[in-house]
Amino acid sequence: MAGNAFGTLFRFTTFGESHGPAIGCVIDGVPPRIALSENDIQPWLDRRKPGQSRYTTQRREADEVKILSGVFEDRTTGTPVGLLIENTDQRSKDYSEIAERFRPGHADYTYQAKYGIRDYRGGGRSSARETAMRVAAGAVARKVLDSLVPGGVVIRGAMVRMGPHAIDRSRWDWTAVGDNPFWCPDAQAAEQWADYLDGIRKSGSSIGGIVEVVAENVPVGLGEPVYDKLDADIAKALMSINAVKGVEIGDGFAAALLSGEENADQMRMQDGKVAFQSNHAGGILGGISTGQTIVARMAIKPTSSILSPQASVDRQGNDVDVSTKGRHDPCVAIRGVPVAEAMLAVTLADHLLRHRGQCGL
Amino acid sequence: MAGNAFGTLFRFTTFGESHGPAIGCVIDGVPPRIALSENDIQPWLDRRKPGQSRYTTQRREADEVKILSGVFEDRTTGTPVGLLIENTDQRSKDYSEIAERFRPGHADYTYQAKYGIRDYRGGGRSSARETAMRVAAGAVARKVLDSLVPGGVVIRGAMVRMGPHAIDRSRWDWTAVGDNPFWCPDAQAAEQWADYLDGIRKSGSSIGGIVEVVAENVPVGLGEPVYDKLDADIAKALMSINAVKGVEIGDGFAAALLSGEENADQMRMQDGKVAFQSNHAGGILGGISTGQTIVARMAIKPTSSILSPQASVDRQGNDVDVSTKGRHDPCVAIRGVPVAEAMLAVTLADHLLRHRGQCGL
Amino acid sequence: MAGNAFGTLFRFTTFGESHGPAIGCVIDGVPPRIALSENDIQPWLDRRKPGQSRYTTQRREADEVKILSGVFEDRTTGTPVGLLIENTDQRSKDYSEIAERFRPGHADYTYQAKYGIRDYRGGGRSSARETAMRVAAGAVARKVLDSLVPGGVVIRGAMVRMGPHAIDRSRWDWTAVGDNPFWCPDAQAAEQWADYLDGIRKSGSSIGGIVEVVAENVPVGLGEPVYDKLDADIAKALMSINAVKGVEIGDGFAAALLSGEENADQMRMQDGKVAFQSNHAGGILGGISTGQTIVARMAIKPTSSILSPQASVDRQGNDVDVSTKGRHDPCVAIRGVPVAEAMLAVTLADHLLRHRGQCGL
Amino acid sequence: MAGNAFGTLFRFTTFGESHGPAIGCVIDGVPPRIALSENDIQPWLDRRKPGQSRYTTQRREADEVKILSGVFEDRTTGTPVGLLIENTDQRSKDYSEIAERFRPGHADYTYQAKYGIRDYRGGGRSSARETAMRVAAGAVARKVLDSLVPGGVVIRGAMVRMGPHAIDRSRWDWTAVGDNPFWCPDAQAAEQWADYLDGIRKSGSSIGGIVEVVAENVPVGLGEPVYDKLDADIAKALMSINAVKGVEIGDGFAAALLSGEENADQMRMQDGKVAFQSNHAGGILGGISTGQTIVARMAIKPTSSILSPQASVDRQGNDVDVSTKGRHDPCVAIRGVPVAEAMLAVTLADHLLRHRGQCGL
Repeated sequence: MAGNAFGTLFRFTTFGESHGPAIGCVIDGVPPRIALSENDIQPWLDRRKPGQSRYTTQRREADEVKILSGVFEDRTTGTPVGLLIENTDQRSKDYSEIAERFRPGHADYTYQAKYGIRDYRGGGRSSARETAMRVAAGAVARKVLDSLVPGGVVIRGAMVRMGPHAIDRSRWDWTAVGDNPFWCPDAQAAEQWADYLDGIRKSGSSIGGIVEVVAENVPVGLGEPVYDKLDADIAKALMSINAVKGVEIGDGFAAALLSGEENADQMRMQDGKVAFQSNHAGGILGGISTGQTIVARMAIKPTSSILSPQASVDRQGNDVDVSTKGRHDPCVAIRGVPVAEAMLAVTLADHLLRHRGQCGL
Repeated sequence: MAGNAFGTLFRFTTFGESHGPAIGCVIDGVPPRIALSENDIQPWLDRRKPGQSRYTTQRREADEVKILSGVFEDRTTGTPVGLLIENTDQRSKDYSEIAERFRPGHADYTYQAKYGIRDYRGGGRSSARETAMRVAAGAVARKVLDSLVPGGVVIRGAMVRMGPHAIDRSRWDWTAVGDNPFWCPDAQAAEQWADYLDGIRKSGSSIGGIVEVVAENVPVGLGEPVYDKLDADIAKALMSINAVKGVEIGDGFAAALLSGEENADQMRMQDGKVAFQSNHAGGILGGISTGQTIVARMAIKPTSSILSPQASVDRQGNDVDVSTKGRHDPCVAIRGVPVAEAMLAVTLADHLLRHRGQCGL
Repeated sequence: MAGNAFGTLFRFTTFGESHGPAIGCVIDGVPPRIALSENDIQPWLDRRKPGQSRYTTQRREADEVKILSGVFEDRTTGTPVGLLIENTDQRSKDYSEIAERFRPGHADYTYQAKYGIRDYRGGGRSSARETAMRVAAGAVARKVLDSLVPGGVVIRGAMVRMGPHAIDRSRWDWTAVGDNPFWCPDAQAAEQWADYLDGIRKSGSSIGGIVEVVAENVPVGLGEPVYDKLDADIAKALMSINAVKGVEIGDGFAAALLSGEENADQMRMQDGKVAFQSNHAGGILGGISTGQTIVARMAIKPTSSILSPQASVDRQGNDVDVSTKGRHDPCVAIRGVPVAEAMLAVTLADHLLRHRGQCGL
Repeated sequence: MAGNAFGTLFRFTTFGESHGPAIGCVIDGVPPRIALSENDIQPWLDRRKPGQSRYTTQRREADEVKILSGVFEDRTTGTPVGLLIENTDQRSKDYSEIAERFRPGHADYTYQAKYGIRDYRGGGRSSARETAMRVAAGAVARKVLDSLVPGGVVIRGAMVRMGPHAIDRSRWDWTAVGDNPFWCPDAQAAEQWADYLDGIRKSGSSIGGIVEVVAENVPVGLGEPVYDKLDADIAKALMSINAVKGVEIGDGFAAALLSGEENADQMRMQDGKVAFQSNHAGGILGGISTGQTIVARMAIKPTSSILSPQASVDRQGNDVDVSTKGRHDPCVAIRGVPVAEAMLAVTLADHLLRHRGQCGL
C-alpha cells in the first residue's frame, strides 16, 4: 500500500522512471478467458503517445508494449498480466542543471524533501511518462468491461476547454474528436484552439484545460458506499493524474448554484425500465451508478515548464532562476484525455468485480 | 475492502443506519500514548449536530459519543479505538410511503438496485447520519496530528458560496466563522445568506453550496505517489461525503484558465527555509505536501428533498410523484463544513503515518 | 491495515479489551438478503463461552450479542454489520501486581515494549476475550456460506490431542464431540482426558493440545494464488488465535516423511465427477480448494498462567517471581475449538466472495 | 488484492509463468537511500537456482535479474523497484500430454477448475519458478532490514529433516550448511542424506522434508495484533510456498505435549536488558517479537512428479494414468530453504515499516 497500485480486485501496480530502462505494470485480478493480445493495448498507447503533433512534447517513444504473463493462447488465464514498455528515447543529455535546481511547479522539491533523493532525469517517477502504463491498464480494463457487460461499455473523452476558450456544447460531435490534435468535440473550437496554442507555444508559455470523460452503458449498482463510492474512486483516479487540480461529476461545481428543483433528475418508467429525465447527477447517486451515462471532468493546470525565468531555489539552499528550454507540452491537458479515459475504465472494471464479489452479477 | 473503511495505517471503519439502534466506528492504527477522552471528540460532534439553528434539519440527536476501547487511563494504547453513538431520535413514524417510492436524487433507487433490499427508514446507511462517525474519527485524527507534528496542525473550514451568493474573499475573517450558523468567514455575506436561506426554506426548496477547508502547518513530504497522492486521497475523502459533486485543490478549476506564468508558485529562500511566493497549488506538488497551507474545496448539490412534487417511480415499477414534507436541510452544504474538516484530518493523519513508515519522521 | 481486521471482501474488524466496557466488531462485505438475527450468532457464542465446565476459566460472561446495523427485517442489507457484546464481568479487583510485572509467556512484555503502554487488566487486548468476536463473525460467515453454496458448507472441529494423550482416530465419532467438555470425538479418550486434566488443574499446572477443523462441501476453486492461497490464509487465520504455535493442512508435518507414492491423492471419474482416492492434501492443491473436505490442525501451547513461581522482570527492570492464582484454563486448547471453526468459516466466506468477484460463480 | 502481492507497507507483487517470456516483480514501499544494485540480489538467486547438483531439477536458468526502476546511482529512491528475469530455458517441447491430463498432486486440476483455462507449460503460474521472485524480493528486504536495524538482521535457513532422516541438533553447525547440497547443518546427516536421496532419485520416487529458518537480532515490538500478528504473517508467508503443508513457530506442535512449566520462557535482567532463559516461543509472544531469535519451520511434501504411474483423469473426463519422466526434484524441500529465508525477510521488513508507521522507531 505504498502508493503505486490502484484498485482492489482489478488492481494494477506500475513502476518505472522517465529515463530508466523500462516502465511496466502488473495487473492482478484480471478475470480469466478474456481475449487479449498486444493488439488490444497498442492502439490506446498510440493515441496517448507524445510527438504526434506540434502541440505535444517532441520526445519520441516507440511505446511498444509487451505482454509478459497472464495470457495464454491469446486469452487471459486469471494470473497477473505483466506489461512492459522499454524506454527507447533516453538521450544522454546534460542534467546537471536540473539535478541541483528545483523547477517551480514541479515535483522536484517535494520528492527531494520526502525521499531525500530523487532521480531528476526527465522528472523520474513524477514524469507523465508513467501515464503510459495507466493507458495500458485501461486497455485491459476495457476488455474486461466489454467481456462482462452485455453490449459493452463505451468510454470516451474529450477536451472541453483550453484556457479561456471553452467549446460550445451544442456543437458537440464525437466524430470530431479524432479529427483534431486536441480531442476537441467542437470542430469550430478546435480551429480556434490551433491558432491560440500556436501562440502559446511560440511564446514559450503554457495553458491549462478541462477534460471530460464519459462511460456509457454502465450497469446500475456499481460503487461501494460509503467510502469507496463510485464517484469517490473516480475522483481519486482522476486527481492522481499529473497536473490535475479539480474533479467533478455530473453538474459538479455548477450544482452548487442550483436549487433542488433545478438539480432534480426525475424518473419515469419507460419500456418497463427506469428512465431518468435528466442527468445532473452524472450517472451516480449515493455513490452507486444509476445506469445513466457517467460524466466526469477534470481541470488540468498549465505545465510549469515555461521559457520565462521563474524564481526558485537549489538543493544547497541558494536562490536561483529557472527557465525551461526544449521539448515540452504547451497544453498538457491534451495528453490527459486518453489517460482520463483509462483511469475511468480501470475504476469501473474494479467496481464491476467488487460488485460481483459482494452482490453477484 | 467492501467500502466502509477509509485509510491505510490510520484506518477507520464505520457502521450504522439512520434509524438503527446505534452508529459507530473502529479506528485501527492510532499511535499509542496519545491523550484521548470523550471530551476530545464530543465538541466536534456538537459542531456538526443537526437541529442547532433553523437552517438545519430539526431532527435532534444527543450524539453522545462513548469510547469503548483502545484508551486506558486517558491515553491511547495502540489498540483499536471503538466509538459508539446511540440513536436516540428513532421516532416510530410511518415509513410506508418512502418504503415503496424512490425519492429522486436520493440513493433509494441505487441501493435497491445494488442490494435488492434497503433499510428505507431515514435513508438507512445513505443518510448523512453516518457523517457523525467521520467527525468522531476526525477528532481522533486531529489528536494524532497534534501529537506527532511539532506545533500541531490547524484544520478548519468555511462555507464560501451559498447558491448564487459567494463570499467576498477580501473580507475573509476566520473569527467570523463561528459567529453565524453558516460557518461563513464573511460576516456581511452571512447576513445576506440568512435572508436568502429563509426564503428557500419557507418555499420548501433547497440550494447548493461550496465549502473550503484548509490545513496549516502540514509537514512537507506527505503523500504517496503515484496513485495515493495526497491530493488524490483528499479528493476521494471529500467526494465520499454525501451530496458532494466536485472537489478541487488550490486554484482548482480556475487553474484551467491560467497560463504557466500566472499559475507559477515561485520559491525563494527565507530564514534558511524554502518560501513559496504564492499558493496556486494548494500546498501539494506531485502529490506530495509542500509545507504550504493545504487548500481544498468541495461543491455540494442542493438536497433533493423538496416540497414540490417530483416525478419518480416505485418499487413495483409504477410512475409516482414524490414530495418531501417535514424536517430537512434547505442547504446541506452547511453541515458539510465539519465533515470536510474531519475528512481532511483523517487523510492527513493516515498519510503522516504512512510517510513515517516508509521514510521515517 | 493496522492488524485488527481480517479478510478482503468479507472483512471484519474487531475491537475491545478484556475489561473495557464492551467488545465488538464490524463485518463489511456481507452479501445482501441473507437471513440473519441474533439467534444465528448467539448459539455459537454460547459454545465458546467460558465457565461452562470445571475445565475452563470460571470467569462468567453473559456474552450476549447485539446486532447494531446491517440487518433490516431480519435480512442483511449489504451494509456493514456491527456487533456488540458488553463486558459484564469486570470485577473491580486489584491489578497492582500484574500492572508492574510481566507474566512470562504472556504478551505483557511485548505489548509494553511495542506500545510503551498497556491495558494490563485481564490481558487487555491480548486476552482471549477478543476471540468471542471471531466466533460472532464466524457465525455470520457460516450464514454466507450456507446461503451461497448449494447444500451448505459444514464446518466443525474437534480436539484431537491433550498433551501426551491423542485420540484414536479409528474411534472418531462426530456425535461424541458435543457429549464431553473437550470437543473430543473419541468418547473413550474423553474419559481419560477428564481424569488427566483434573490432575493438571488441581496441581495448578497446564497442558497443550491439538485441534482439528474440517470444512465439508467446499466448492472447488477457492483460493487466490500465489500469496493468498487458501491454505496460506487458513494458516494465518489459525496462527492468529491466541496460544497457537503450529498449523498444518492435510497430512501436514507427517507429509515430510512420506514418499511421492505414499502422498499421492489419485483421481478417478465417478458418476461424471472427479473423485479423489485419498486426501493427504487436506482438500487444497496449488492453494486452491479441490472440492474435497478441507482439513486443518493447530497446535496450542499450555497457558503460561500456572501456580508455580516463574522467574520474570517488572516494568522497572527488577527481577521478580510471578505465579498465577485464580481463574484460569488448565488447557486453553479446549476453548480453541469454536474459535478455529470460526476462523475457518470467515476464511472460506472471504475466498468465496473473492472467487466470485474475479471468476464468477 | 487478487492474490499475487504480499505485504502492506513493504509490498511486492509478482508475475510470470514458467514458460512465458519473463518473470518479474514490483516492490512498492522500499525506503529511500538504501544502497542497492543487482549485485545485492543476484547471489541469493544463485543460491536458489536449480541445476546446481544432481539433487535438484536439471532445468537450467541463468536467472539473471535486472533492476528496471526505483534505484538511482545505486541507491533506492523510494519509488517502486521493478525486477525482471527473462526465462531463457523455454524448450520447445511437446506439452500435448500434460495439456490434457491433470497430474495428481499438482495444481493442474484446481487451476483448470478455478479459471476454466490454464497455461499448462511447465506448470505455468503454479510452477516453483515463481519463487525466484520471492528470493529477489527477499534480497531487497534484507537490505532494508540491515539498513534500518542497528547491527543488521541475520536470516538463515537449513534443512532439518529429509523424509525419515532428521538431523541431530546437537551437531548443528551453521558453517556446514553451505558445504553440502542440502543446506544441512549436520555434516554427518548430510552424508547419509546423499546416499538416501540417490536411491530415491534413481527409483524415480520423491521424498518430503522439513526446513527451519531463523532471524537473529530482530528488534522487539514487530507484529500487529490481533490478526496481523508476526507469527500469523510468517505462517502465511511460509504456507504460501509451493508444496508446504505445515508451519510452526518455536516449539510448534511439540508445545502441544508440554506442561506450562516445561514451556515457560522465564526472564531475568541481564546487563540492564531483559534476557529470556529459553526460547520455546520462537521469539514471538502475543504476536509481537520478543527480541529473541525468531524460529520457524515448514514441512514440505514430496513432489507428486514421480515415475510410477498414478491414477488420474483428463480434461475430457476420462480416467488416465500419469507418470513423470524427465527433470524433476527428488526432494523439493531442498530448494525451499532460500525461499523460506526470503519469505521470512519480506515479512520482517514489512512489519518493521508498519511498526515504524504506527509506533515510530
